[in-house]
Amino acid sequence: MISLNMNYQKLNASYLFSEIAHRVNTYQHNHPDKKIIKLGIGDVTEPLPPACIKALHKACDEMGSRDTFKGYGPEQGYSFLREIIAEKDFKARGANISPDDIFISDGAKCDTGSFQELFNPSITVAVPDPVYPVYVDTNVMAGRTGLYNKGRYQNLVYLECTSENNFIPELPKKQLDLIYLCYPNNPTGATITKAELEQWVRYAEKQKSLILFDAAYEAFIQDPDLPRSIYEIPGAEKVAVEFRSFSKTAGFTGLRCAYTVVPEGCLVYDHMEAPFTLRGFWNRRQTTRFNGVSYPVQCAAHAVYTDEGQEQVKLLISYYLKNAAVIREALTSMGFDCTGGENSPYIWVDTKRDSWEFFDLLLEKAAVACTPGSGFGRCGEGFIRISAFNQYENVLEAIDRITTLKL
Amino acid sequence: MISLNMNYQKLNASYLFSEIAHRVNTYQHNHPDKKIIKLGIGDVTEPLPPACIKALHKACDEMGSRDTFKGYGPEQGYSFLREIIAEKDFKARGANISPDDIFISDGAKCDTGSFQELFNPSITVAVPDPVYPVYVDTNVMAGRTGLYNKGRYQNLVYLECTSENNFIPELPKKQLDLIYLCYPNNPTGATITKAELEQWVRYAEKQKSLILFDAAYEAFIQDPDLPRSIYEIPGAEKVAVEFRSFSKTAGFTGLRCAYTVVPEGCLVYDHMEAPFTLRGFWNRRQTTRFNGVSYPVQCAAHAVYTDEGQEQVKLLISYYLKNAAVIREALTSMGFDCTGGENSPYIWVDTKRDSWEFFDLLLEKAAVACTPGSGFGRCGEGFIRISAFNQYENVLEAIDRITTLKL
Repeated sequence: MISLNMNYQKLNASYLFSEIAHRVNTYQHNHPDKKIIKLGIGDVTEPLPPACIKALHKACDEMGSRDTFKGYGPEQGYSFLREIIAEKDFKARGANISPDDIFISDGAKCDTGSFQELFNPSITVAVPDPVYPVYVDTNVMAGRTGLYNKGRYQNLVYLECTSENNFIPELPKKQLDLIYLCYPNNPTGATITKAELEQWVRYAEKQKSLILFDAAYEAFIQDPDLPRSIYEIPGAEKVAVEFRSFSKTAGFTGLRCAYTVVPEGCLVYDHMEAPFTLRGFWNRRQTTRFNGVSYPVQCAAHAVYTDEGQEQVKLLISYYLKNAAVIREALTSMGFDCTGGENSPYIWVDTKRDSWEFFDLLLEKAAVACTPGSGFGRCGEGFIRISAFNQYENVLEAIDRITTLKL
Repeated sequence: MISLNMNYQKLNASYLFSEIAHRVNTYQHNHPDKKIIKLGIGDVTEPLPPACIKALHKACDEMGSRDTFKGYGPEQGYSFLREIIAEKDFKARGANISPDDIFISDGAKCDTGSFQELFNPSITVAVPDPVYPVYVDTNVMAGRTGLYNKGRYQNLVYLECTSENNFIPELPKKQLDLIYLCYPNNPTGATITKAELEQWVRYAEKQKSLILFDAAYEAFIQDPDLPRSIYEIPGAEKVAVEFRSFSKTAGFTGLRCAYTVVPEGCLVYDHMEAPFTLRGFWNRRQTTRFNGVSYPVQCAAHAVYTDEGQEQVKLLISYYLKNAAVIREALTSMGFDCTGGENSPYIWVDTKRDSWEFFDLLLEKAAVACTPGSGFGRCGEGFIRISAFNQYENVLEAIDRITTLKL
C-alpha cells in the first residue's frame, strides 16, 4: 500500500494569504467602485532593469543558433556567474568566499526549504517568531516537529522577536543545532548589527551549530555599518550558510534566480562527532536533484553586476525605499511604533490591537490591503506588515487614505 | 551539534560520468590530433525551435515594461500552459486529465527526485535495473534503503530488465508500494506496449501501489500502437503519476521546463488505510518549496503547442531519430543485438563483453565516446548506450569509424 508521509498531516493549514484574498475579494464585490491598493504581498511591481532585458535577448538568440546553443549547464551554475558573485558580493566586502562556494538556484524559497535535508532528523531546530513559513513547514514535513498546538509546533524552538528585544532574539540557553536567521527580516523589517550577529556566530562556534542566514533583502541595506553578509563576521564561514536572491534585488520574482553560499570551511558532524565538509553534501544533493538554472536567466543575473546593471538596480531599490519612507513616516506621525522601512521594504506596525481587526479596518475604511502580523506567528499578534512593493503613486494614495482615518 | 543525515553516507559515489570524462580527456591528451565524437551524454545539440525563440523574445520584452511585467507566477504554473498541455497531450489522446492535474516545474529530474518525499519512509520501493540514478539516490537520501553492497542497495527492489524479458520487467510476486517505470526507457531505449503497461496498472490497483511513470522520452514514439502516456490505460489515473519534460521534446535542456501529472483521482493512504487525494499533498509540497518556473520559459513551452511549434518539434525529433536509425542499422549489420533507436534516441547494444572494455575499444580505435551500460546497474553489464543526440554529420563519421573496426 502506498502510504503517506504522516508528517504532512501535522501541517497546520495556513490560510493567511487565502484568507486575505477572500476578505479582499468580498470587499471588492460589495464595493465594486473602490480601487483597492494592495500593500500586502512582497512581490515587486517595477520592470526588470534594461541591462537584464538586453542580456536576456542576447542569450535567447544564442539558444536559437546551433553554434551558440546551450544544453545542460552545470548544476551549480555557470562559472561566469559564480565568479562575479564571489568577487562583487563577497570579496569586495572583505569576505573570503570563492566561486566554488556559490550554488546558483531558481529561488531562495527552494534552497531555504531544501537545506534541512542534509541533516539528521533528530537535530534541534530554531526559527524566529514571527517567521517566514517555509523554514517551519519544511521541517514539519521532514518530521522534526511534534504536533501543532496553539500556534506552535512541539519540538521546534521559537526565537521570540518582539519590541522589547528590538526584534533580535536573545541568545538561547539551551543547545540549538540548526538556527534560521533572516536579516533584513521578513516580516519585521528589522536589521541586525555586526555586534549582535557576531554573538550568534560565537554561539554557533561554541555549540557546533549551523546558522542558515537568509539575506534575501540585503540589497535594501543603506546603513554602511550594517552587515550585508554574515561572512563579514570573522569565523562565520565555518558555521553559516547564506541565502541570497535576485528576486527583490533586481525584480527577478518572475524570472527566478537565487544563490546559496556554502563555504568550504563549513562543517557538519557524523554521530561520532567526526567533522565533514558540508559543501560536498550540498553539492551531492544539488547534482542529484537539480539540473541548473535556465541559461538566459543566469545571463540576466550576470548583467546585474555590470556597471549599467548596478546603476539600474540601485534606482530600483531607491524607488521602493522611497515608498517605504513615505509609509513609515506617515504611520509614525499617526503615533504608531514602526520597525523597518529604512533598510528594508517592509514596515512592521505595532497596531496595539488585534492584527485581523486592524487589517479589516484598513480594508473597510481605506480600501488598503496589508498583511496581519499574527499570520507569521504568535509574536506577530498585534502587528501588521505593510509592503513598499507598489507604484509610488499608489503608495501616496494609500497613505492619503490612511492618514485621514481616526485610528 | 549539527549532525549529518547519515543516509548520505550510504550513497555509492557514482563515478560513471566523471570516469568517462577522465578517460576521454586522457585519450585526447595522448592523441591531440584526434576529433573525438561524443555519443555518450543524453544532451541535445540542435537549437531551440524558432517558435520558442520568438515566444522568449516577446516574454522578455513584457518583463521590461511596467504594464506587462510579471512577478511571482502561480507555483503550479500559468493556466495558459496547464490548459494547453491538458488539451493537447492528454484529452486529444483520450486521457481524462484536467489542467488542475498538471504541475509545471523546472525539470523532470527535480520532480522524479522530489515525489518520494510525500510517502512514508517504510514503503517498499522498486526501481528498474538498469536505472536512471535519480530514482535510487533520492530514496537512499530519504533513508528507504540499507547499505550499498555489490552494486545494489539493501531493501530496494530491482526490477530486472534484460534481453530475456525484452527489457520489460516481470510483475513482482511480492508487495511493492512505489514503482518507478520509464518508457521509452533511459538507458535501454525499450518501449512498453499497452497490454504490458495495463498489467502494471492492474497490479497497482490490486496492491494499492503507486506507479511513477517517467515519460520524458515520449516524443520519440513513432509507432501509433504504443502508449505515449500511462493514462491511455483505463484506471491509471487512480494509481499513476506521470513525468514529462520539454528537454528532449523541444531541446529545453538548457532552458528548463517540465511537468508532472497528478490526477485528481490518484490516492494515497494513511496508516489506518484511509484514502486521501494525492494531488493535494503534491500541491502542498510545491507551494511550500517551489516558486514556479520562469515566465519567459513557460511562454516558450506554450509555443511548442502552436501549429508552428508542433511542426518544428517534429523536425527536431525526426532529426535525432534519423541519427538513431543510422546507429542502429550499422551496429545491427555488424552482428550486435540492439534495442531502442526506433521510438527512442538511445540504442542499447549488447556487446557480449565487459561494458568498460567495449567503451575503451570504441574510444581507442574509433575516437568515439559512448556510455558503459554497467554504470546504470548490474543488468547493464555487457551493454553500452549510444546516444543519437549529436549532429548528423558527426554520427555518420562515428559510424564510419566504427564499422571499419573488427569487433
